[in-house]
Amino acid sequence: MLTSIKKSPLYPIVNPRSIALYGASNRIDAMGSNHLFSLRDLGFEGPIYPIHPTETEILGFRTYKSVRDLPEVPDFVLLVLPTHVVPDILEECGESGVRHAIVVSGGFREVGGGGVPLEQRLKEVADKYGIRFLGPNCIGVANPSHKLNTTFFQFDGRPGYVGLASQSGSFVTQMFKFLDNKDLGFSTAISVGNEANVDIVDALEYLGACPNTKVIALYIEALTRGKVFMETARSIVPYKPIVAFYAGGSEAGRRASFSHTGALAGADRIYDGVFRQSGVIRALSITELFDFCWVLATQPCPGGSRVLIQTHSGGPGAAAADACDRLGLDLPVLSPETLEKLEPLVPHTGSITNPVDMTYHKDPFQYFHDLPKVLLEEERADMLLVYFLLPTQIVEQTLSRSGLPRKVVLTETDKLIDSLARAVAELSRAYGKPLVGYTFRDLGERLIRGLRGENIPVFPEPHRAASALRALVDYARARARLLGAGELQAE
Amino acid sequence: MLTSIKKSPLYPIVNPRSIALYGASNRIDAMGSNHLFSLRDLGFEGPIYPIHPTETEILGFRTYKSVRDLPEVPDFVLLVLPTHVVPDILEECGESGVRHAIVVSGGFREVGGGGVPLEQRLKEVADKYGIRFLGPNCIGVANPSHKLNTTFFQFDGRPGYVGLASQSGSFVTQMFKFLDNKDLGFSTAISVGNEANVDIVDALEYLGACPNTKVIALYIEALTRGKVFMETARSIVPYKPIVAFYAGGSEAGRRASFSHTGALAGADRIYDGVFRQSGVIRALSITELFDFCWVLATQPCPGGSRVLIQTHSGGPGAAAADACDRLGLDLPVLSPETLEKLEPLVPHTGSITNPVDMTYHKDPFQYFHDLPKVLLEEERADMLLVYFLLPTQIVEQTLSRSGLPRKVVLTETDKLIDSLARAVAELSRAYGKPLVGYTFRDLGERLIRGLRGENIPVFPEPHRAASALRALVDYARARARLLGAGELQAE
Repeated sequence: MLTSIKKSPLYPIVNPRSIALYGASNRIDAMGSNHLFSLRDLGFEGPIYPIHPTETEILGFRTYKSVRDLPEVPDFVLLVLPTHVVPDILEECGESGVRHAIVVSGGFREVGGGGVPLEQRLKEVADKYGIRFLGPNCIGVANPSHKLNTTFFQFDGRPGYVGLASQSGSFVTQMFKFLDNKDLGFSTAISVGNEANVDIVDALEYLGACPNTKVIALYIEALTRGKVFMETARSIVPYKPIVAFYAGGSEAGRRASFSHTGALAGADRIYDGVFRQSGVIRALSITELFDFCWVLATQPCPGGSRVLIQTHSGGPGAAAADACDRLGLDLPVLSPETLEKLEPLVPHTGSITNPVDMTYHKDPFQYFHDLPKVLLEEERADMLLVYFLLPTQIVEQTLSRSGLPRKVVLTETDKLIDSLARAVAELSRAYGKPLVGYTFRDLGERLIRGLRGENIPVFPEPHRAASALRALVDYARARARLLGAGELQAE
Repeated sequence: MLTSIKKSPLYPIVNPRSIALYGASNRIDAMGSNHLFSLRDLGFEGPIYPIHPTETEILGFRTYKSVRDLPEVPDFVLLVLPTHVVPDILEECGESGVRHAIVVSGGFREVGGGGVPLEQRLKEVADKYGIRFLGPNCIGVANPSHKLNTTFFQFDGRPGYVGLASQSGSFVTQMFKFLDNKDLGFSTAISVGNEANVDIVDALEYLGACPNTKVIALYIEALTRGKVFMETARSIVPYKPIVAFYAGGSEAGRRASFSHTGALAGADRIYDGVFRQSGVIRALSITELFDFCWVLATQPCPGGSRVLIQTHSGGPGAAAADACDRLGLDLPVLSPETLEKLEPLVPHTGSITNPVDMTYHKDPFQYFHDLPKVLLEEERADMLLVYFLLPTQIVEQTLSRSGLPRKVVLTETDKLIDSLARAVAELSRAYGKPLVGYTFRDLGERLIRGLRGENIPVFPEPHRAASALRALVDYARARARLLGAGELQAE
């Protein structure tokens, strides 16, 4: 692990004070112009210096003919230029004292042929001047808390706690909205492209030290520094979870990723072993990647793999039990003490096996407070999985039928729903056990938004919730193993 | 298969002309009152007769003291009563000529003990009078095109083409909103409860003959008439796909479903064999259940398992290729003719292997018409999987920067996006091959809504899209096998 985040070659690229940009122009359809739009629109607060041979002003920014003419050496240069001119321009930057760059331009190693020696030349120029750069064929960095977006894609998400290092630029830009829809966001996202200089291991190391990052997501097509990756991951995992989606493993994925970043991907089972040995949690889809990040960043480590399921309908309970069991989670039988406490709570039509099925309740606090309290107290279980169903509409209807005026009904409905979400969240915090929900209702409903706002992940079906619990168990075990191995001490 | 849908014991229950209801009252928190609210609010057009010993009017409906006092014999009675009175009331109904019923009340076989003989008594009463009934411990029927909702849950979805037969009531009511969010809806949904008289096989048979049902979804915890289930499924599959989610298979699911409907679930692999032999597509999660329904109802049968992937970013293409490959779909190499046609379309930074990666396009019709046309023409492939990314915002920005007035920009943006969605859909129809999309954008964006409105399923990640294509291939093979076996003739 880095002793200081400032020692990372990525530090000035992720946290620049000033930026120079090659490739923007007053032709609004030029790629580089889009990068300038993005930089401007997120409101980067330091100076931005567009460089252009003929223009004097671009999008309101004063423009310079060469990096030599700038009033200062920028923290990095962003190059969005035709492939063949990139090495010479990087040389010019090196001569002027620039020590960091993002090379967005493609057409290097990934296209084969003449691209290969061009990329070699780029590396040599960088080495000559001690330049550290991201790319080529990458999309740069998004660091919302620093108001930095070097990609050509407008950032419309919120700052969050997920740090991403990606061998695909799309998995940076396309996740802005994707994460926003899940109430998640990036702390920092880094696209590494062809990794000619800075690679995904450097990005992992940076995110390991980044104070805004609670969980690290990796999109991997191929690792070139396998051993260093493992060492780095093993040094981070005891303090911060890492989840990886690996898309190079199958024959077809290998072919696709070869033409994409030019790296030759290894066999799936080798990567599986690499991840397992380094305590990295593997996701088999993009949905899993961020589902796992969500629970790992919000829930405590469980003490074991025993899950209690709370429901008020048989089918959703059975489906959750089935999913947990298929995923190797345990569904313990309740202790006599718990059974006794459940007696007055669960009606005769319900069930006090696991899943605990309340079938119905007249007072919603029974379901949102009394029952989860008893289940969180159960010493035979490590986690609680709760089926949530309380549409705003139903509460409104119930209150309306009692004859209250419409305005009062609406206010009381909101207050009641908010207090139910809070009741569950407080219990979850008090008992220090993971608590995850699922529902088939709209995730935009007030109750679900309330729970999510209180850091209770609620998934739109039981299978995803169970997979997320499985990831928690896997992480807890990997962490314990790495700490127990005496390689590292817990904080 | 039924020679006429009217021969089904469910026909009068799903398509009643009149309904009598036991259990509603002017106590708005009584369960039965909620059923009456639902019936009223969806606007059932025939007479509804609440029956109550003391009330004269409930929710504006004239109330009767007994089923004997009704002006006609209702097509069915809906019983939402305390368990122990149900057999006697059913007897009274039988004496009055009633021949169909829905028994919502629980507390029978599923709770064990005294519930078992009570359910036996219910069956005997029904047999004595020739009554066919759904339940007990069920939630009834939703048939939106008949404006029928007998459940206690308000129907807020739209009519659609998915027919559901479910051993869990929640998978009826909780799917109203769930399906609505996916632009799907029920043709008819049937909750079978304890199946004391009418069972899930009867419901399957009904849905097989139902003209509004394009695809059948099953939620199964246990089958009692396994052989008849298989025969019925095999007679339907050549004409209509069936997708099943089975939640009784794992040890835990078995335990949960036992306490739920009182049936003893069999081992997972037995059910797997039952589904495979009858051509039923198995879903392993609720998400898969309806994802599969969506593609099966909207896409033609593919001629084989060969998928072409169209993308304009490497990562999403690689992730899709990886998912297809893991799921056993083939990713063919393109023919020389196709490669020749792609030459002028795909820039040098792109890739003309499979996935075909356009990297970028200046004219969106290249991506939404020219490229998919070439790929659909490829004789070496059976299906097309397309990565969709075209946020309204980007089109707006591009048009805005050209200096057009705001109002014109908005109109032109909408027109352009709609025409792109139409272009893809028309191609898909013209070539008769399945075309499915995926995106990481908001599914509410205009382009995605447009595509979905044109019956192009678009999934929020590649893995779900690939699983859906896999279901199409499995169905096409099952159908061909059943037809080829000479057991049945195609229409």
